[in-house]
Amino acid sequence: MKIKPLAAALAALGVGVCFGVQAAPDELREKAKVIIQPIEPAKIDHPAKVDLGRQLFFEPRLSMSGIISCNTCHNLSLGGVDNLKTSIGHKWQPGPVNAPTVFNASLNFVQFWDGRAANLQEQAAGPIQNPIEMGMPHTLAVAVLQSIPGYVDEFKKIYGTDQIAIEQVTDAIAEFEKTLVTPNSRFDKWLKGDDKAITAEEREGFRIFYDSGCIACHNGPNLGGNSFQKIGVVEPYKSTSPAEGRAAVTKKDEDRWYFKVPTLRNVELTYPYFHDGQAKTLEEAVTLMGRLQLGRTFTDDEVKKVVAFLHTLTGERPQMPLPLLPPSGPNTPRPDPFK
Amino acid sequence: MKIKPLAAALAALGVGVCFGVQAAPDELREKAKVIIQPIEPAKIDHPAKVDLGRQLFFEPRLSMSGIISCNTCHNLSLGGVDNLKTSIGHKWQPGPVNAPTVFNASLNFVQFWDGRAANLQEQAAGPIQNPIEMGMPHTLAVAVLQSIPGYVDEFKKIYGTDQIAIEQVTDAIAEFEKTLVTPNSRFDKWLKGDDKAITAEEREGFRIFYDSGCIACHNGPNLGGNSFQKIGVVEPYKSTSPAEGRAAVTKKDEDRWYFKVPTLRNVELTYPYFHDGQAKTLEEAVTLMGRLQLGRTFTDDEVKKVVAFLHTLTGERPQMPLPLLPPSGPNTPRPDPFK
Ligand code: HEC
Ligand code: HEC
Ligand code: HEC
Ligand code: HEC
Ligand SMILES: [Ca+2]
Ligand SMILES: [Ca+2]
Repeated sequence: MKIKPLAAALAALGVGVCFGVQAAPDELREKAKVIIQPIEPAKIDHPAKVDLGRQLFFEPRLSMSGIISCNTCHNLSLGGVDNLKTSIGHKWQPGPVNAPTVFNASLNFVQFWDGRAANLQEQAAGPIQNPIEMGMPHTLAVAVLQSIPGYVDEFKKIYGTDQIAIEQVTDAIAEFEKTLVTPNSRFDKWLKGDDKAITAEEREGFRIFYDSGCIACHNGPNLGGNSFQKIGVVEPYKSTSPAEGRAAVTKKDEDRWYFKVPTLRNVELTYPYFHDGQAKTLEEAVTLMGRLQLGRTFTDDEVKKVVAFLHTLTGERPQMPLPLLPPSGPNTPRPDPFK
Repeated sequence: MKIKPLAAALAALGVGVCFGVQAAPDELREKAKVIIQPIEPAKIDHPAKVDLGRQLFFEPRLSMSGIISCNTCHNLSLGGVDNLKTSIGHKWQPGPVNAPTVFNASLNFVQFWDGRAANLQEQAAGPIQNPIEMGMPHTLAVAVLQSIPGYVDEFKKIYGTDQIAIEQVTDAIAEFEKTLVTPNSRFDKWLKGDDKAITAEEREGFRIFYDSGCIACHNGPNLGGNSFQKIGVVEPYKSTSPAEGRAAVTKKDEDRWYFKVPTLRNVELTYPYFHDGQAKTLEEAVTLMGRLQLGRTFTDDEVKKVVAFLHTLTGERPQMPLPLLPPSGPNTPRPDPFK
């Protein structure tokens, strides 16, 4: 009962403000820790599988043209993306949607913007045979691998069989992708207790992000990737893209414009933004999110701060050797870039 | 004087053959060593420059589309090539000629099939702005790098200036390319004295290669890369390719169909063959070389042996980390894949 008047008295002296500044970082952090978890380094259970998966991820012979690999569109030297509005695939065909990053994709509850793949292994079966991505029928992809003695050996060692199957290919790729996490972002360091890891401006940006409700959809270890949400909750999103989101899977009208909430991890590196790649900058994306999802018009200063916070989500990209791919055999089917 | 009759006596007993087998490897090797030198490991004088050059070699932001880097056509996970008949570049345009390997290119006396670049640095100025390769004007390429803080720092440290210049870009790439040598092929081990490094069949293939005169053009450390020679010395080469070879540079009619003799190092990995990529297999290339250059028709068995020898020229490909490229800045010009 004595505390209250004391606090009031201190507040009158302006000391309460000082109190507030010292206590607040912890308070915001404690609230944050309830709904955002730091990225942990990958645990590698099966290094040989990861090595094989890395080779396959960089393997252009899995494409009809012989020059497109997973790494073409999910460039691991960049942010696990191609930084194009929509991807360019086989024969320079534009894809329908923006390529999401493979970094931390293992933490997403489902794969693809519309969630049509349950997990990474299921996902990896898509792009190889997709006519506007790698354009390679699975039978031919497997025939190529089967004709390369180095691969036959590796698959044999790992899967115990002489006959390579597409499920093994996608299993190895998925196992590799699970290693593509980006721990130790400055934000995670702050979450773990390092006050100095982020600046006052960045912290203030996170406070705005938290208080205005971005956190409702962008939460969990990936700040996203754990629910489908409508783009255009308050105000409709205008797009020329044919993508209709979750409705493409459920065939229900009420699922139109619902997309998997993308991760905000490494979002600095994954421009342009949204499923159609229409937002060129983070400033644009944040402004639109405020208006469309929350009915909020941020000031330039608020946008600047939120963007500053988003930059703290850039983690350590995985370091890896450039894989050396085994030489083709005498009967390895040759690429046909114009087929 | 006693030795001769003794040798004759031994020969009569069939022992001479045995003598012959033991002595011959050395004799062929001694002859070989006069005109072929083993590849030596790269000496790295300036590791920071090599690192920068590696980043630039893998940098798709140096292309108008944002997805093509040197490594697209000179894939270092494969044989430093794209294994296409002719390369696919910007907007899926087919190139005029087959892409030569960058492995050991530093040992070539000039660069390009027609030798129009004197060295690697001069060469590297070509592909970035070539409209059917990366399609990026040098001014824009430099503007991109200049907008990326990580690159500005690196160039500053190495070249001591805030203003990036295209000559620095090509200098760093060339410095990196000088590290792309492939030592320790089985053939080089044999050259250095290890009898067991190659099989009897492979050695016999080399003997045919040597004795029939292939060695006249394919010699030096690169087994090629040190002269221009006509394709079709004895019999004309039939091609639908517009490439006319050295004549494009000298404008002299007598230089038509003269090309830089390509290296045979790692030739197992660099299919298809010839400047137009018309020969799909080594068997085809060897058969044609015999007929067109030497007027010789090899038997299937001879071709097989020569090809077996050519496979011993595969060296150790350089192992390197996958470069992590510095993040774009707020004003980094964006790619335009349809421009
Ligand atoms: C031509 C470009 C291209 C190629 C090649 C490509 N991808 Fe993708 N990738 C995309 C695009 C575009 C999407 C989004 C498609 C969608 O959501 O409908 C995507 C989605 C993904 C996702 C889902 C991520 C998420 O958060 O939903 C993963 C994982 C992935 N790709 C991995 C791979 C792998 C593995 C390969 C090679 C086997 C590959 N990609 C090849 C363009 C490409
Ligand atoms: C009601 C759910 C919801 C809320 C609230 C929300 N978002 Fe989003 N966010 C999404 C969805 C869904 C997408 C993907 C939309 C699309 O691509 O069509 C997205 C995309 C983004 C992107 C682009 C990511 C990328 O890689 O393309 C950014 C940045 C972003 N949100 C930031 C924010 C910020 C900042 C706020 C608060 C102002 C916010 N979001 C509020 C659901 C939400
Ligand atoms: C679109 C495909 C493509 C791209 C991209 C490309 N190259 Fe090439 N490269 C070629 C082709 C084709 C040739 C042969 C051209 C000729 O000889 O006229 C060649 C020739 C070369 C040579 C000469 C080798 C020799 O023995 O003559 C070197 C070295 C080289 N490229 C390095 C590079 C570098 C460095 C880059 C990036 C800055 C690059 N290339 C980008 C296709 C490409
Ligand atoms: C008179 C010179 C000369 C002689 C002799 C010669 N070559 Fe060649 N070789 C060349 C030239 C020039 C080329 C490139 C021709 C082109 O691409 O148009 C070449 C190309 C090749 C290639 C293809 C390499 C590649 O990467 O495309 C092989 C393999 C080859 N030679 C093997 C041989 C063999 C085996 C012999 C002996 C039977 C031989 N060469 C004799 C000059 C010669
Ligand atoms: Ca994006
Ligand atoms: Ca070739």
